[in-house]
Parts: sequence; structure tokens; C-alpha cells
Amino acid sequence: MSSSALPLVDLDALAEVLSPGALVTEADVVASYSFDKALFCPVGTALALIRAQSVDDVVETMRFATEHRIPVVTQGTRTGLSGAANAVDGCLLLNVAKMNEIVSIDPVEQTCQVQPGVINLELKNALVEYGLSYPPDPGSVAISTIGGNVATNAGGMCCVKYGVTKDYVRGMTVVLADGTVTKLGRSTAKGVAGLDLASLFVGSEGTLGVIVEITLALRATMPPAITAVGIFADTESAGHTVAEYMASGAAPSMLELLDGATIRAINGYGDFGLPDAAGALLLVQSNAPGQSAVAELEAFQEIAERNGGLEVHFSDDPADSELLVAARRAVSPALERHAHSIGGGELIDDVCVPRSRLGEFFAKLAVIDARYDVEILTAGHAGDGNMHPTVIFDARDEAMVAQAQSAFAEIMQLGLDLGGTITGEHGVGYLKREWLRRELDEGASLMHERIRAALDPLGILNPGKVFA
Amino acid sequence: MSSSALPLVDLDALAEVLSPGALVTEADVVASYSFDKALFCPVGTALALIRAQSVDDVVETMRFATEHRIPVVTQGTRTGLSGAANAVDGCLLLNVAKMNEIVSIDPVEQTCQVQPGVINLELKNALVEYGLSYPPDPGSVAISTIGGNVATNAGGMCCVKYGVTKDYVRGMTVVLADGTVTKLGRSTAKGVAGLDLASLFVGSEGTLGVIVEITLALRATMPPAITAVGIFADTESAGHTVAEYMASGAAPSMLELLDGATIRAINGYGDFGLPDAAGALLLVQSNAPGQSAVAELEAFQEIAERNGGLEVHFSDDPADSELLVAARRAVSPALERHAHSIGGGELIDDVCVPRSRLGEFFAKLAVIDARYDVEILTAGHAGDGNMHPTVIFDARDEAMVAQAQSAFAEIMQLGLDLGGTITGEHGVGYLKREWLRRELDEGASLMHERIRAALDPLGILNPGKVFA
Repeated sequence: MSSSALPLVDLDALAEVLSPGALVTEADVVASYSFDKALFCPVGTALALIRAQSVDDVVETMRFATEHRIPVVTQGTRTGLSGAANAVDGCLLLNVAKMNEIVSIDPVEQTCQVQPGVINLELKNALVEYGLSYPPDPGSVAISTIGGNVATNAGGMCCVKYGVTKDYVRGMTVVLADGTVTKLGRSTAKGVAGLDLASLFVGSEGTLGVIVEITLALRATMPPAITAVGIFADTESAGHTVAEYMASGAAPSMLELLDGATIRAINGYGDFGLPDAAGALLLVQSNAPGQSAVAELEAFQEIAERNGGLEVHFSDDPADSELLVAARRAVSPALERHAHSIGGGELIDDVCVPRSRLGEFFAKLAVIDARYDVEILTAGHAGDGNMHPTVIFDARDEAMVAQAQSAFAEIMQLGLDLGGTITGEHGVGYLKREWLRRELDEGASLMHERIRAALDPLGILNPGKVFA
Repeated sequence: MSSSALPLVDLDALAEVLSPGALVTEADVVASYSFDKALFCPVGTALALIRAQSVDDVVETMRFATEHRIPVVTQGTRTGLSGAANAVDGCLLLNVAKMNEIVSIDPVEQTCQVQPGVINLELKNALVEYGLSYPPDPGSVAISTIGGNVATNAGGMCCVKYGVTKDYVRGMTVVLADGTVTKLGRSTAKGVAGLDLASLFVGSEGTLGVIVEITLALRATMPPAITAVGIFADTESAGHTVAEYMASGAAPSMLELLDGATIRAINGYGDFGLPDAAGALLLVQSNAPGQSAVAELEAFQEIAERNGGLEVHFSDDPADSELLVAARRAVSPALERHAHSIGGGELIDDVCVPRSRLGEFFAKLAVIDARYDVEILTAGHAGDGNMHPTVIFDARDEAMVAQAQSAFAEIMQLGLDLGGTITGEHGVGYLKREWLRRELDEGASLMHERIRAALDPLGILNPGKVFA
């Protein structure tokens, strides 16, 4: 054990009770673990990194942290977009990515138990042979952990039909601030024994305790889907289509929107053959049984055309579907490359509005876009009203940075003005903590503070995140 | 305002700030509002009854209660089965059943806002003309309130496919112990802005605050279902059938079990034509589109026969379905009448076990049944593993009462031993508060106490309920 930033704490004592090699103090390694994928969030200097290998490692870390009143920042693969996993000064970075065992899969009960570091896609793959699936599919599905998904209540493209992470969490084992290990929730399909503390932990972003095991509900393998594409002159008519289609009682298994700028970024990134001149594109899937899927997509076609859809077609060729979904999944790397080409700035927003107000949302977003010199490219989970306008700008240019931040803020305000929320699935972290205060009223803010203080009286769990 | 049980408090001051007539102190009226449908739960003497007509009435009541440190027991139509709505000595009974307005129905967003006193079935009926439905359907659907359903996370027969009350609660307005009004949750399809405090209130049984408005997610009108019936020689083989059928990936819209004694009680109650000699009956519905429903019931037939099913048949005649569902809905009045005929004692248990252990559950339940002189009749939501063994006994006979309580307790212990919970949908209230301590570990118990103290520092919200 060599130097540490704050040598007042005897980290050797901690190293002795952890798994061999779990404590890392090499400054460059610690620094490389000190941030997630968020922009504009401070990155503190951590005291050390713990690569936990067991529940015991987590318990010992929390006991040590409590004894010495050291902040603890829990993290997985650090794919978050809000800075929740960023180091705060003098903290221990408690990384649970190595706790990545699928503990059990129960095909009769259709549940599994996993450690928090299991990668979402690896779980999905492991379930295939059991005829089971775990639906939540955030954009980070291939790289993010179930623990992180639970800590942010991650969403994705399936949510419009299959719900978010919260809908699959039955129970969990957590380590509290003082090192106490406790089980929350249940393993059965139903249960109302006491307060729903498992749900309280879902989306708590490391502020209430450390999640060390999770019991998830699963579903039977998803049936195959057929895909429709609707092309629109503008996002507003696409938004109206979404509202009317969802109100019709349709239950699409996917309903995604790409605006024109996003379409062109994707075409610049790969050979997806999307219509370059389109103002917006809706991607719809149905996996309803038999002819019901065709009926659902025909209903979409009819509603889209009535709302100004220029071209709507669908196919039951799996190759067509795969290409379209691949195009949708390419949004993230395409935008990253586009941002890189003009100076690296990329601020991904995550507002969620009532579907009925999507048209208005896009109309007002266009006004914001026109007022700034930065680019705003929008894609998202339209069926849920959850949009990701991404502000792309030259991060080397101070004036552009300021513009980007203003545009980003205006988009959140627009979400609130329309009866929506500042974050549909990415969480608050550091990035949106000032905005959380605007979304919550005084009573709800106070409840947050009181509950946090009740469970973490020393204030050592991810301090400064979610709430200032 | 005339006399009150504890004249130290000046109730006139409260009456002045409430809606005219909202405060009731007539002892007989107050006494008649002092209990719900639970047995063996103490009924205290309340100071007064408030029939709240508005959020302001609730706020004024809570302010008054905080000022004078008076316990408050919130109640709806008092159909609960665990004593959560029973008066405690010196309390104010805060009855919100008159706050029964459906505030808004939004067919585009598929949500509604309701006051807590709206009756579940009245909401369902109001939604029909919008082509919408609110699935949760507790046995008390015709008489219980949405507020009460939320406060206990009520379930029902639809849950096996459509989930419980919690899955439909997006947000709510609550009045905290000190009278603060605050909004929790959201109105959008998704949202992760801060802790999920709305979920924390679901199932909190009046211990955290008073729910005064609820935003519910809705679904399109449920498609019609077809029904199958399977007859078995015993509950154990029916239990194995349920486990295997659910593990097959089937998604029935109902999967209910009646044991032989329940079947005979129903036949004694009305002309339902159930097979009197059966050991168990499974009632299965599928509302999958088109031929998928038939395929789902054929799969049930095949699995039931392989597991010892004596007779399995299904029908797409809606009249047959209606009669069978009516028979299932008759369990509650049939058992009540049966209990009445032998001395009135009826203790309804509510354990939920993993479906994979249902066979074992029934085998061990038979052993418990054989050991006592009381009768145990079992029906329940088998597809969720949520069973309601009901202990019927002569409540005038002290020895039988003791036996009934022992049998009731053994059933809960059996549920816990099988990895289940002491309550799937009825809640803890007073009836099961000692048992909650057995289900939760020390850490979870402490978290309950701390959160409750954080939100209700004076301990005035339903004291003595859920936790001692």
C-alpha cells in the first residue's frame, strides 16, 4: 500500500480485511475509475478504489467508512450519464463490477438472483437456454450492470410494452451505511409485508446503501416481432401520430423516434439506408401473436397517414427488422462520432412528457434549437414520451459550452412545463441535482432529505449526488 | 359539538376549520366507524370521526393532530382484513370515503386522477366509455376504495397477468403528518427524478401520510377471455399443475384454485353446479388474441392431465365463463355464510409462496388441517402462489378460538418456511404485526422504524399498526 491523497486514514487496516488485491491506491488507476460518462460533473480525488469481490468486502468497506466518516461512491461499469458514479473528494470508490455471478435461475418461478456486477446482456444471453428473458434494455445493455440498472431504474426500447427495471425487481440484499446486511422485498410474485423498501432502493443512485444481490422477475422468451417504419416531414406530426396510436389501445413492443438530424448522423456512421431527407422517422414493432401483429402495424399505418406520414411500410422479413433496430442502436455511436467531429461536446438529455404533448414538445424544441448555435439531435422512446434531445457542440469553445448548457436547461424546463419530468431513465446524479429541486415541491424535497438522513445519518453515501 | 371521550382536547376548534358537519363526535356513530373486517384486532375508543370532504379537511385534521399529538387512523370503506383501519384509543378517525370524485380521465395518456374514496368498481365502470380499464380487482372490488387499495397494494384475480395496484400507481398527492401537502411520483409513463416515494406509500397502511389524490395508469379495455376448468382429486396435484403451467411460459389472465371444502361451501350457497366430490378445482382464463387463447387452454389441459387432472374442459361460451367466475366470486359470501352457520369465526389468511412450492404447500397444509378441530377451506390466486386458507370455527368456543389462532399462525409459518410471505395482498395492519417481525430481518425492521420516524416524528400516524 503506497501513498493516498489524504494520508490521515490508515488504509492498510482496510486492506487487511478485504479480499487480497481488492484495495487499490495507485493514483492513476484510482483516477481512471473516478468518473462515469457524464459531462460537466466535477470529478473528485478519491482516497482509494475497492474492487469488491464479495459481500464481505462491501460490509468491511462500509464499516470502515462509517468508523472514519469517509464518503463512499458505489459504481459498476460507470456507463451512467449523470455523474452519479463520479468520485467526490476523499471518498472510497466502491466498485462492484467484479461481483458478477448469476447466482441462480429458477425456470419454474421465472426468477433469477444475480450479483450487481452482472452485465445486462450477459444475463439475457444466459437466460436463453431456459426459455426466459429479462426485458429491460437500456442503450448500454451490452456494457452496463444490473446493479447500475437497478440504481438508476434503467429503461430502454422495450419499456413501452414491458416496463422498466423497477417492474422486474422483486427483492434485493443491500449493505447499509454502517455495514448491516439486510434483505428487502420478496421472492414471490406478490407481497405486501411492510414498506416497499426494495422499490425505494430502485433509482436511489447509491444514496441509501449498496446493492449486493438482486432477485429479478423474468418472462418467457419474447415472441418475434415485425417492424414498421413511418417517414414524416417533421417531428411534430410524428409526435401526434405516437399520441394517437398509443391512445388507440395499441401495445407495440417498440415505438422509437429519430429526428432528421439523427437520421443523417446515422447514415454518416454506417450503411443503414435511412431516408436522408426525412424530418422524422418512427420505428414500430409488434410481437402480438399471429395476425394481431399485422393488425397492430396496419393500425399504425392508418394513423400515421392520417397525421401526415409521407410513407409507411412494414415487413415481416426478420432481416429488415434487424437492420432497422441496428440503425436505432447506432444512434449512440453515431452521435458520439458526430460530436467528436465538431469538437467533442455531447450532452444527452432525458426528459419524459405525457405522450399527448409530444407534438407540442417537438414544436417548442424546434424553437429552442433555432435560438442556439449548437446542434440538437433528438431520438428516443416516443411510445413512453421519453425523448433524448442531444446537444452537440464544440467543447473547446467556451461560448458554445455556455450555449449548450443553456439549451440543455431549456429542454428540461420544457419537459417540466409540459407536465413531464427532467429524467425518464438516466437519473439525477450530479448533472441534474439543481433541476430535481425544481421538479419536486418543498414537501417531497424534505422527505428525500429526511429519508436519506434516516438511513445514512453520517451522510457518507454518495454525498452531493441527487441532492446538493 | 357535545361530549367526547377525552375532553382535554378542544374539538370545537377543529370543527370550525373543517367542512360543515365533517366532525362527528356522537359516540355511537364514532364507534360504528371504529373497525374494519378483521378478527382478533383490538378496537380502541376514538375521540372523533372526521368525514373529510376535501384536501383542506385532511390538512386541518393533520395540523390539529400534530399540534395536540393525537393519533390519526385513516380509513376508507373499512373493508380491510387486518385491522389497519381500527381505532386506537384517543385517535381521530380520518375517513376519506366521501372524497370520491374521479377528477379526470385522460384517454390519450391512458391515465386518470382520482380521489381516494372512489370505489374500485365505480372507476372501472366509468372507464368503459373511454375504452379503458383499471385491472386490479380485489375480492372487495365492489365496496373498497382506490385509496384503500393503494394503502394495502391490493391484488385480485387479474394479477397473474396484469399485476397489482402498485403497478398502476404513477403518482399521488399526500398530506404528511404535520399537514404539509406534497406531490409524489409523476404523471408520465416513466420517471426517475429522485427516490420512488410514491411506491413507498403504496402498501404503507396509513403509517406515512394520508393519500388524497392518486394518478393511475390505465390499460385499453381487456379483451374477452375463454375459460377452462380442471378437476383434481387433491390440491397437491392442482398445485403441481399450476407450477408446471406457469413455468411453460403461459400467460393466463386468471388462474384460481378452490379446494374441495370451498367447492362444497359454494354449492351450499348457490346453484353453481361445481363438482361436489372434487378435491380441487382450477379455474383458468386466457384472453390472448385469436387462436392463441385456445392454444393456451389446450396447453393447460395437457399439463393438468399429465399431473393427475381428472377432468379438464373449456368453453368459449361467455355464459359458461360468467357462471364460473361468479362461482369464484361467491367464495367470500359462501365462506361467510358457512362460518355463520357454525358459530361465526372466520380467519382469512393470505400467504404467498413460490409457485414451484405450491404442491408442498398444500401437502403441509393438509397436515395442519388434520391436527386441528377447526375447518380450513382454501381458495386463492394460485397463478401467483397467493393462497387464502380460511380458518372457520365456532367463535363462541374459547378452545376453538385458540385452535383457530394456532392454525392461522402455523399457516403463516408454513408460508415463511417455503420462502414465501405472510401477506400477499391483505397487508399487515394489527393482525400480523408480530409476524412481520418474523418475516423481516433486523436490518429491514430497523429501516422501517427509521423511515417511519423520519416522516412521522411524533408517531401519530396509525400508531401500533404494521409495527408494534
